[in-house]
Amino acid sequence: MDKVKIVALKESVLEDNDRDAQNLREELRGKGICLLNLMSSPGSGKTSTLLALNRAFDGRLRWGVMEADIDSAVDAQTMQEAGVPAVQLHTGGMCHLDADMTRQGIRALGMEDAELIVLENVGNLVCPAEFDTGAAINMTILSVPEGDDKPAKYPLMYEKCNILVVNKIDALPVFDFDRERMERYARKCNPEIEIFYISAKTGEGVDVLADALVKKVKAWCR
Amino acid sequence: MDKVKIVALKESVLEDNDRDAQNLREELRGKGICLLNLMSSPGSGKTSTLLALNRAFDGRLRWGVMEADIDSAVDAQTMQEAGVPAVQLHTGGMCHLDADMTRQGIRALGMEDAELIVLENVGNLVCPAEFDTGAAINMTILSVPEGDDKPAKYPLMYEKCNILVVNKIDALPVFDFDRERMERYARKCNPEIEIFYISAKTGEGVDVLADALVKKVKAWCR
Repeated sequence: MDKVKIVALKESVLEDNDRDAQNLREELRGKGICLLNLMSSPGSGKTSTLLALNRAFDGRLRWGVMEADIDSAVDAQTMQEAGVPAVQLHTGGMCHLDADMTRQGIRALGMEDAELIVLENVGNLVCPAEFDTGAAINMTILSVPEGDDKPAKYPLMYEKCNILVVNKIDALPVFDFDRERMERYARKCNPEIEIFYISAKTGEGVDVLADALVKKVKAWCR
Repeated sequence: MDKVKIVALKESVLEDNDRDAQNLREELRGKGICLLNLMSSPGSGKTSTLLALNRAFDGRLRWGVMEADIDSAVDAQTMQEAGVPAVQLHTGGMCHLDADMTRQGIRALGMEDAELIVLENVGNLVCPAEFDTGAAINMTILSVPEGDDKPAKYPLMYEKCNILVVNKIDALPVFDFDRERMERYARKCNPEIEIFYISAKTGEGVDVLADALVKKVKAWCR
């Protein structure tokens, strides 16, 4: 078993993150790399969703993952064991990643031929939404047990995301979760948001999400 | 139905939050008020736990709640409808509260005779742990669906907390959650942490937690 590469990120000194993010997005587009910034609360199932997507991609994409965490290397280890190139990024207590930190991670991952690079951001619904990482796609996961009111309480996250994945739908019978209410709140933040319902655990809905992502990534890389 | 009081917090200009927090803690002790800082991920069940505790306190404590959120006033409304004095604090996008913001909230709540004031912090496992609010008790909620590995990933939160409440234990049968593993991780962060298992939904375990809190608050206020 290969040891996981752990990268201690340096806090960036750049003042204009928005411009830096825009530069990174264009650089990546030039190289045919689509960066996806995956955000959610702690424990929504970011890593499990990526594992389920890996099975559903079924070799259709060359892709790698950057796992950002304050501590521990379990997520990068898990992805690597599933055959997905991965690096673990340690943020040194920072609650989010900006474009410069993302660039450090991409360099460490060293996948010049990737079509898709996923940044699994720090589990946090607040701060990551405030910093453009240079991603072409921003995707958030809301798990059923968290409740249908999250878009009302953390509006910026939903405003910034192109894709909302509702995970753990196998647990719908044991929780009060009103899909319509949730969708109404989410579309109030962002009328264009695309919503997918999945269970990373049972695999339900994952193929539909995987197909949509493959299509988006191929279109971006063209 | 009384309208909820909404307070827009001003960002503090004080540089030394630790000293300010210590001052606030001593001021409150002088008044016989115990401040409890309640932290967790979004959707762990902070408000539901407070509602369940209110029933279990059964009038044994004079208490009030400050509900901090980036947006919306639903939580303060909910508490007020249950007969608990409450104010809604809007953080203006800030991901945490510091001691000065907490003081603004306490002033707005206006309960000089309270024995317990609960600050329901912004749903976030990262930033709130970094700022001492002046609380006598720091309490965090981990809900079963979030997974047993959270203390390994967000160690500072568990290091700073006196009490860990594991919520949604009624959902244990549908999730892989290893209590021993979770406790081992949590005690590695803080060997003294007190752990309670509850279901705010069914009420299981809430009486034991309520009794422990009443005892701690009365001891603090004496």
